[in-house]
Amino acid sequence: MPSNIDSYRLCEVPYYRATGDEVTLFEHAYAHRLPMVLKGPTGCGKTRFIEYMAWKLRRPLITVACNEDMTASDLVGRYLLDAHGTTWHDGPLTTAVREGAICYLDEVVEARQDTTVAIHPLTDARRILPLDKRGEVVRAHPDFQLVVSYNPGYQSRSKDLKPSTRQRFVAMHFDYPDEASEAVIIAREGGIDPTLARQLVKLGRCTRSLTDRGLDEGASTRMLIYTATLMRAGVSARASCEATLTQALTDDPEMVTALRDLVDAHFA
Amino acid sequence: MPSNIDSYRLCEVPYYRATGDEVTLFEHAYAHRLPMVLKGPTGCGKTRFIEYMAWKLRRPLITVACNEDMTASDLVGRYLLDAHGTTWHDGPLTTAVREGAICYLDEVVEARQDTTVAIHPLTDARRILPLDKRGEVVRAHPDFQLVVSYNPGYQSRSKDLKPSTRQRFVAMHFDYPDEASEAVIIAREGGIDPTLARQLVKLGRCTRSLTDRGLDEGASTRMLIYTATLMRAGVSARASCEATLTQALTDDPEMVTALRDLVDAHFA
Amino acid sequence: MPSNIDSYRLCEVPYYRATGDEVTLFEHAYAHRLPMVLKGPTGCGKTRFIEYMAWKLRRPLITVACNEDMTASDLVGRYLLDAHGTTWHDGPLTTAVREGAICYLDEVVEARQDTTVAIHPLTDARRILPLDKRGEVVRAHPDFQLVVSYNPGYQSRSKDLKPSTRQRFVAMHFDYPDEASEAVIIAREGGIDPTLARQLVKLGRCTRSLTDRGLDEGASTRMLIYTATLMRAGVSARASCEATLTQALTDDPEMVTALRDLVDAHFA
Amino acid sequence: MPSNIDSYRLCEVPYYRATGDEVTLFEHAYAHRLPMVLKGPTGCGKTRFIEYMAWKLRRPLITVACNEDMTASDLVGRYLLDAHGTTWHDGPLTTAVREGAICYLDEVVEARQDTTVAIHPLTDARRILPLDKRGEVVRAHPDFQLVVSYNPGYQSRSKDLKPSTRQRFVAMHFDYPDEASEAVIIAREGGIDPTLARQLVKLGRCTRSLTDRGLDEGASTRMLIYTATLMRAGVSARASCEATLTQALTDDPEMVTALRDLVDAHFA
Amino acid sequence: MPSNIDSYRLCEVPYYRATGDEVTLFEHAYAHRLPMVLKGPTGCGKTRFIEYMAWKLRRPLITVACNEDMTASDLVGRYLLDAHGTTWHDGPLTTAVREGAICYLDEVVEARQDTTVAIHPLTDARRILPLDKRGEVVRAHPDFQLVVSYNPGYQSRSKDLKPSTRQRFVAMHFDYPDEASEAVIIAREGGIDPTLARQLVKLGRCTRSLTDRGLDEGASTRMLIYTATLMRAGVSARASCEATLTQALTDDPEMVTALRDLVDAHFA
Amino acid sequence: MPSNIDSYRLCEVPYYRATGDEVTLFEHAYAHRLPMVLKGPTGCGKTRFIEYMAWKLRRPLITVACNEDMTASDLVGRYLLDAHGTTWHDGPLTTAVREGAICYLDEVVEARQDTTVAIHPLTDARRILPLDKRGEVVRAHPDFQLVVSYNPGYQSRSKDLKPSTRQRFVAMHFDYPDEASEAVIIAREGGIDPTLARQLVKLGRCTRSLTDRGLDEGASTRMLIYTATLMRAGVSARASCEATLTQALTDDPEMVTALRDLVDAHFA
Repeated sequence: MPSNIDSYRLCEVPYYRATGDEVTLFEHAYAHRLPMVLKGPTGCGKTRFIEYMAWKLRRPLITVACNEDMTASDLVGRYLLDAHGTTWHDGPLTTAVREGAICYLDEVVEARQDTTVAIHPLTDARRILPLDKRGEVVRAHPDFQLVVSYNPGYQSRSKDLKPSTRQRFVAMHFDYPDEASEAVIIAREGGIDPTLARQLVKLGRCTRSLTDRGLDEGASTRMLIYTATLMRAGVSARASCEATLTQALTDDPEMVTALRDLVDAHFA
Repeated sequence: MPSNIDSYRLCEVPYYRATGDEVTLFEHAYAHRLPMVLKGPTGCGKTRFIEYMAWKLRRPLITVACNEDMTASDLVGRYLLDAHGTTWHDGPLTTAVREGAICYLDEVVEARQDTTVAIHPLTDARRILPLDKRGEVVRAHPDFQLVVSYNPGYQSRSKDLKPSTRQRFVAMHFDYPDEASEAVIIAREGGIDPTLARQLVKLGRCTRSLTDRGLDEGASTRMLIYTATLMRAGVSARASCEATLTQALTDDPEMVTALRDLVDAHFA
Repeated sequence: MPSNIDSYRLCEVPYYRATGDEVTLFEHAYAHRLPMVLKGPTGCGKTRFIEYMAWKLRRPLITVACNEDMTASDLVGRYLLDAHGTTWHDGPLTTAVREGAICYLDEVVEARQDTTVAIHPLTDARRILPLDKRGEVVRAHPDFQLVVSYNPGYQSRSKDLKPSTRQRFVAMHFDYPDEASEAVIIAREGGIDPTLARQLVKLGRCTRSLTDRGLDEGASTRMLIYTATLMRAGVSARASCEATLTQALTDDPEMVTALRDLVDAHFA
Repeated sequence: MPSNIDSYRLCEVPYYRATGDEVTLFEHAYAHRLPMVLKGPTGCGKTRFIEYMAWKLRRPLITVACNEDMTASDLVGRYLLDAHGTTWHDGPLTTAVREGAICYLDEVVEARQDTTVAIHPLTDARRILPLDKRGEVVRAHPDFQLVVSYNPGYQSRSKDLKPSTRQRFVAMHFDYPDEASEAVIIAREGGIDPTLARQLVKLGRCTRSLTDRGLDEGASTRMLIYTATLMRAGVSARASCEATLTQALTDDPEMVTALRDLVDAHFA
Repeated sequence: MPSNIDSYRLCEVPYYRATGDEVTLFEHAYAHRLPMVLKGPTGCGKTRFIEYMAWKLRRPLITVACNEDMTASDLVGRYLLDAHGTTWHDGPLTTAVREGAICYLDEVVEARQDTTVAIHPLTDARRILPLDKRGEVVRAHPDFQLVVSYNPGYQSRSKDLKPSTRQRFVAMHFDYPDEASEAVIIAREGGIDPTLARQLVKLGRCTRSLTDRGLDEGASTRMLIYTATLMRAGVSARASCEATLTQALTDDPEMVTALRDLVDAHFA
Repeated sequence: MPSNIDSYRLCEVPYYRATGDEVTLFEHAYAHRLPMVLKGPTGCGKTRFIEYMAWKLRRPLITVACNEDMTASDLVGRYLLDAHGTTWHDGPLTTAVREGAICYLDEVVEARQDTTVAIHPLTDARRILPLDKRGEVVRAHPDFQLVVSYNPGYQSRSKDLKPSTRQRFVAMHFDYPDEASEAVIIAREGGIDPTLARQLVKLGRCTRSLTDRGLDEGASTRMLIYTATLMRAGVSARASCEATLTQALTDDPEMVTALRDLVDAHFA
């Protein structure tokens, strides 16, 4: 079962609309193989950005969604038994290290300590990955880079990165695109006309200000594209917003009312 | 042990009585393969609805009841040892992804994080399922759709979906059917006459208002069908309600008395 | 290692003395294969009742004592390795589902969530048991019925059945038999004369009222049969009660004294 | 690896000095195969008593020291892999059930729930042990009896037996032997003269009254035998008591002083 | 993989300087095979003492450092899979029991309950080790003795030995050697002259009195030997004390200052 | 899969700039094989120091990043199944012990107890590593040395080393280099001119004083090298500092402002 690195290459250019110098900064960081952390709220485009950079830098991209039940072995590899006894199988991180891919650990703060600690020797001058169970030290391919992400907004303090981990990364802060950019994205991806897209963006930005009143997070760009998609299919504005924004964002009756009021104010 | 996808096809049309535009909305969402979440109380018809939609869209339906002891491997698959060494066995989600079924994760909030995180790459533009342990990236069959459900009423805050998960779904809110519809359903499924069915519905709705006084949940439509079934078999109204409503809903002596009073008021 | 379903058939009629319409109600519920829950205190006859019903309905009875360390695999089945590789072994629930037995999950509230959730698809219109690990959907034998039990008296709130589980069952409440019936049972099972049996029943009922003063549970019918057994063997009334009631019910010195006083009052 | 039941037979009569009717009561209980629980403080002779009864009744005795890390499989059995695939290996309880031994579960309150629940079907009229993993129901050998023990003094409430478990047992309360009996035991087992033994018993009983002042438990009979053993070997009374009583009973400096004062008062 | 008991024999006499009658007392206890517990602070010589006794009694010594992640199987043994199926491998305790070694469980309070309970049958008249998983009862070799240790000073109450465990042992209390003895030890082991050794001992004893002011433990004899070793190598007294005492004992800035002041007072 | 010890040798001399007598002290400690603990903040050069010493002493260096999910088996070794049955595989610690390497346990306080306890017999006069599962006692190669590290600044009290562990090590305290040294390091490693390097060092030292105002840790030397790297690549001072210092050090909006003010003050 050899992992075919080419299945991790992006075939077509992902749509990404830059909002500043982030592409240049990332290129400089990659040129020196500095480890990167992408910080920002859910659905603001971090995953799309890393896909775009992988395409631009012509590197395969291996993405791992971190979670508290993932072990270091899930990342690094393990022995599996086959007809000839146990055989070592590289995990996704090891594959990236050997093959020179960009390894993207999404929501790294959700990972257990053995996972975050496993990446330390890859993020300093050593650029090695010790496979203790195999007695092997893998030196990183010259093209390998490590990128991680997290959302500083809602995880609890107890899930912060340890200082000894976070000091190993250059950090880029992402946020929702500005109003005009977001309208362009939604019009393009949702297939609706620019005026309607701008209206949706205004509504979306209003929901984001509700986080001050107890909403976990406001509507992401992705959610507004969902809304646009249903509207283009002929569903009414109210029904589209109810399904893709109001009901999707909250279960709290008062917040439901607040969101419905916002919808009415924009699409009455 | 190949999984036979045809065993997941529904042979006969499930009985479902629409209460609004939910069938149309779901069809639009499915047309764009938007991930869906069905929200609503126990026994109000979410499972029946998804069975009906699977039948209507002629898709196989693979249902997984989520729980806190289920691992990502239970969903995605694992290696099993046989006479020729270890062989990979797709889990139910992977089967659905490969074969183009609708995968229905019932009570998704009960699942552990590694389960909910595993579905992220299936719910955005990528529509992929990385099988890290196998070094394989499965691209979803064009017909595949992911649907999840939960009951916003009684699970604790600590079991809420993370924003980064819930923002990936279009949400539909379900509730008990209106009085007339519920009576039609109960008369049909319980095999009793419409007048008696309406009486049962009135009683059921009264129990639902007891949630304000500490009852976890009121009688579901399914429970009222049980009551009807026993009454049709010749059990007295009181004994039927005692077994299918009062004793089934609560262990609390005061609540038992309150429920018996309701029964007496409707079937004295 | 095929499981021989006949080893689960009861060979002789279990002694059961009905205290109301419970036999008829259960027969009606079984006729429609409605899932049943038996509620009631320890040792009041729930196990004896389900054995009697299994004998009366000529069904094999597969009993599983639930506990917090039991996994869904213990119930449903698992792969085991033998000389020819891994072979699937049905668990007790799957055996019951395939062979048309009554499956009795004793003290179901003690089970973990993956166990209780595993039974959901067996308790609605579907009557199926998905074996996810095997990629097989088992449709229940027409004779299969699911019966569960629990004691509403002493388990903590945190171990309540979830509403989405409990709404799937028709509930029967059991209690200790009435005074005359209990005396008949004790005289018969303990082999003592009716007068002495009635004395023991009076004593037993007094211990049950001590639950208001901190005793976990009063003497069960089974305990009174133990007392009768020792007395018939020639042990004195006091020594028999000390061993089978007082020391068996409590470790608390004050409660020991209270119980001894009760014994003296009845057998002085 | 067949378990040789004869290795569990006692070859010579264990020394046991009865303090009341406990031997007769146990014989009556065994005659009816009533399950027994032995309650009492550490080192008061429960283990010696069950060994004596096993010898007297000519039954093999299988003892299991319960603990919170023991699983039901440790008790009941499991599949193990050998050259011909997996083979079932009976656990100690199953061996006792099949072969007609007395199974003694020492400190049963320390066991996990799956262990205590596993014994339920052995303690009522069924006298069966279902081996769910094997699909086998073992009916108990006519000579099998289950005996458990615990110390009601120091385990926390959270480790009490569940009422549904404890109501299945006839209970015998043990305590330290009376002064004269204990002196006879110590003289015999420690090899010292009766006068010195009586002095040691007086000292031991004084330490037991210190439990009111915070000592976990006073000196057991076994500890006094240790003291006698060292004194017979020529160690001074003070040094013997320091090692076998004072330092063995406590780490608390104040309690050390209190115990030394007691020693001085008895052996000055 | 047979365990070679001779690898556990001590080849040369360990240096041990007796501080009282501890050698004689241990010999008496060993003569009757009484289980022993060695109590005392870190680095005061408990391990050295048991090595000396093992050498003096010409017994192999098997030492196990207990910890909360060690299982009973780590101690007793387990089945391992090899080319011919599973084979039983004795753990260190079982090896000691079979071969007549002294088994030394260091820091026994750190062990899990299944470990401490496993030693019970070895510490009373039975002197047996039941290997439940193997269905074997190992009778202890006549030369076998069990010795355990712990530090009563700093573990929390929750990690105390259970009374039912601690009553099985004869206890010996150890402390740091007296001033003169400690100086002799340090001069000999650290290779420095007696005057300097006495100075170091005075300093060490001062650090021990700091436990009243919040230091976890004062300098052990072993630490003072480290200091002597560096000083003999030409490192200055201050630098030696800084590395082996001050920085080694604490991370607290105030305590660092207090310790430096002590050093200055002794080596200014 | 033999572990090739030569892959752990350093090929070129690591850049290390001594700040005091630490090299000499370490050499003395190594000469007597005293176990060492390196204490100090993240990124101050502990790892670089041990690499330098390993190179200087011509010893292979085996580094293990400790974490709470690492088991003693990860360190010591385990049996793995291959075509000929189970074979023992040495862990990284065992490899170091056998081959005479320096074993460096980075962030040892993060390890579980079974890991820290496993190193005890290697850190006293015995210098042995018992492999209990293999029944083997490995005597350390004469060149073997154990070195551990931790950051006393931010781990909680609950993760302190136990006194019985910490007393086994000679301790060296590390801190950030002095201003001049740090500027030399940054100029050299970041490839910038000395004046700019000194400016960056001044900024870095200001961030370190923010720990008094709630920042977890100030900028490490490594972070300042990152800043220099980006600046040399043509990124503006502000953008470089934003990415490598401000966003990398904190998610807290107020702290972000404080850090930006510091940057402006140094690079306005």
